[in-house]
Amino acid sequence: MPDEYKVDAYSVEGKVDYEDAVKKFGISLIDDALKARIKNDAGDVHFMIRRGLYFAHRDMNLLLDKYEKGEKFYVYTGIAPSGGMTVAHLVHFIMAQWLQEKFGADVMIQIPDEEKFLAKKNTNLTLGSTHELAYKDALDIAALGFNPDKTKIFLNTEYASVLYKQAVRVSKYLTFSIIKDAFGFGNDTNIGTIFYTSMQAVPAFLKSVEAGKNVPCLVPLGLDQDVHFRVARNAIDKLGYYKPAIMHSTFIPSLKGGPKMSASDPDNAIYLDDSPETVEKKVNRAITGQQSTAELQKRLGGDPDKCAVCQYNKYLFEPDDKKLAKIIEGERRGTMRIGEHKKDLAAKINKFLAEHRKEKDRIRDSMDSFMLRA
Amino acid sequence: MPDEYKVDAYSVEGKVDYEDAVKKFGISLIDDALKARIKNDAGDVHFMIRRGLYFAHRDMNLLLDKYEKGEKFYVYTGIAPSGGMTVAHLVHFIMAQWLQEKFGADVMIQIPDEEKFLAKKNTNLTLGSTHELAYKDALDIAALGFNPDKTKIFLNTEYASVLYKQAVRVSKYLTFSIIKDAFGFGNDTNIGTIFYTSMQAVPAFLKSVEAGKNVPCLVPLGLDQDVHFRVARNAIDKLGYYKPAIMHSTFIPSLKGGPKMSASDPDNAIYLDDSPETVEKKVNRAITGQQSTAELQKRLGGDPDKCAVCQYNKYLFEPDDKKLAKIIEGERRGTMRIGEHKKDLAAKINKFLAEHRKEKDRIRDSMDSFMLRA
Repeated sequence: MPDEYKVDAYSVEGKVDYEDAVKKFGISLIDDALKARIKNDAGDVHFMIRRGLYFAHRDMNLLLDKYEKGEKFYVYTGIAPSGGMTVAHLVHFIMAQWLQEKFGADVMIQIPDEEKFLAKKNTNLTLGSTHELAYKDALDIAALGFNPDKTKIFLNTEYASVLYKQAVRVSKYLTFSIIKDAFGFGNDTNIGTIFYTSMQAVPAFLKSVEAGKNVPCLVPLGLDQDVHFRVARNAIDKLGYYKPAIMHSTFIPSLKGGPKMSASDPDNAIYLDDSPETVEKKVNRAITGQQSTAELQKRLGGDPDKCAVCQYNKYLFEPDDKKLAKIIEGERRGTMRIGEHKKDLAAKINKFLAEHRKEKDRIRDSMDSFMLRA
Repeated sequence: MPDEYKVDAYSVEGKVDYEDAVKKFGISLIDDALKARIKNDAGDVHFMIRRGLYFAHRDMNLLLDKYEKGEKFYVYTGIAPSGGMTVAHLVHFIMAQWLQEKFGADVMIQIPDEEKFLAKKNTNLTLGSTHELAYKDALDIAALGFNPDKTKIFLNTEYASVLYKQAVRVSKYLTFSIIKDAFGFGNDTNIGTIFYTSMQAVPAFLKSVEAGKNVPCLVPLGLDQDVHFRVARNAIDKLGYYKPAIMHSTFIPSLKGGPKMSASDPDNAIYLDDSPETVEKKVNRAITGQQSTAELQKRLGGDPDKCAVCQYNKYLFEPDDKKLAKIIEGERRGTMRIGEHKKDLAAKINKFLAEHRKEKDRIRDSMDSFMLRA
């Protein structure tokens, strides 16, 4: 029996049992055969796939069938503006950029600036403030190396003349009953939140609408967002478009332990705005897999799975498998001193953030080439 | 006890008991004092108000308080594209144009091209087809003499970049519970229809958003649309804007009898596209208030309230009170021959339609000056 856990569009609670979730959600594991196929098609497998950060999928084999026959796919992902992005927020964008590079994929990025506004009980929150955050996020995303000719970013409220019309088509197939069951909504849920999933569905078939013929779509997302596509894929199918393929990631653990790196406790996460000193301080305070006493540590060794430093290296900051193996072994056997371990990670993060800032400065004034408005 | 009747946003059934509806909806009758006040402010009272086609209101006195202190109001009304407008569909636009002329009001006209698409069970209906109908309606409306500098018409799907953002703000205050009770929706209602009322609410405060200060709004509408504003007025108030004032009309009877002139039976209504011959034919077949036998007619006289010819004169085609009195007396006493009676009405309708067509031809190529897109 798996422990109690909860993964839905609005919360992640408890320790997620991923194998159980795969069965429950009706999705498939990314197995070695699929990894080999990706490698064959792309010439490479991103370490986030190789190491299982992306662990499950829907219809990836169908997508690659089409790709191998010459039908290019595009990538759609997004982020709800939430008050400053963390490095964990970058996962799907790093993946999207990699897919763009390796598969020549166009990329469409949705920033649903209305979603948090609608979901938060606080009625003083204004759409204006989420709008500003959304533009900040757009810059953070674009600076990950996207090709502006093949990448379009939009805010839902600004692109609604395109999105709303298509969302209406989706919504016709989604009854309150379907949405209530999928999202756990009740009679006290506001009607904007009830409708919202239709807006999230649109970019998964928008290229097909624009092209006047079916264009395959791949959506990298966190497992918590799968529910939107469980309902949307049926509606999209009924509209006559390809169901989007999905790649599901697990959650980057928080620095202090916990299932999902949350933006609500600033010490739990590394923000893109954090100064080098803040990064060092936060990494220093991170949870490790060391035993509680030197004696236990000597006897049992450390546990890399519990170690935020190892996990950050594995999923985000150490692409080199050999170097990663050394770090994990060092943690397991206790041969690497914990301070050194942390210093090394902090240095990698700060290097990444410095380069990212430089890139943001470079593209800041040309963000219009990325943004879609209508 | 009133007879059974039903008036809601999606249907009108039975003979509407307007006095009962006023109590039930919590609205006020347009009384002689209010008519006198309108006459005082406008220099005139439109015969549709004078003769009780507009019979009820919300907050008209508050609106006129503001107007008399120099605060101008704007007018918002609309029509869901439904496959060809009838003369009865023109009522609110004739009123809006009159309010523009007499009060210098800006006019905003919403064509919710998604509403019918969402509400109809038929899933083959496309948004593209409602879009085309919407543009046809826009021309029919604009040709009623609106000033293009003070009149803006928009389709919801084309103006969604402005509307959706504000609809989201409204929707945050409207739970499914509120909407379910107001509209009689159930779990099988689609989520686009559930959300839709938020889109209908927006133009009632949009001028205030744009002006950065409160601008009063007056909405002429059919009694069946009041429900949208029963829920929206509270949300608009919570957002800090003036609640819109409302003017409610009864329904133009159908040519063959029945509570509302419906577009679904073509013989029941005069379409703006009807040829002079069709108009004559339809008017000839219209229900009158004559008794079933010559003997009864002589003894009791006719009943103008049951006579579609009288009603069309009263509410749409005979602005002159003296001429109208003569028509109604003629019907009541049976002194006017029914053929003459009908010929006279058909001629008036055909004169109106001919002028309307001429005006459409004149403005057809400059419709862009009326349309709002974003």
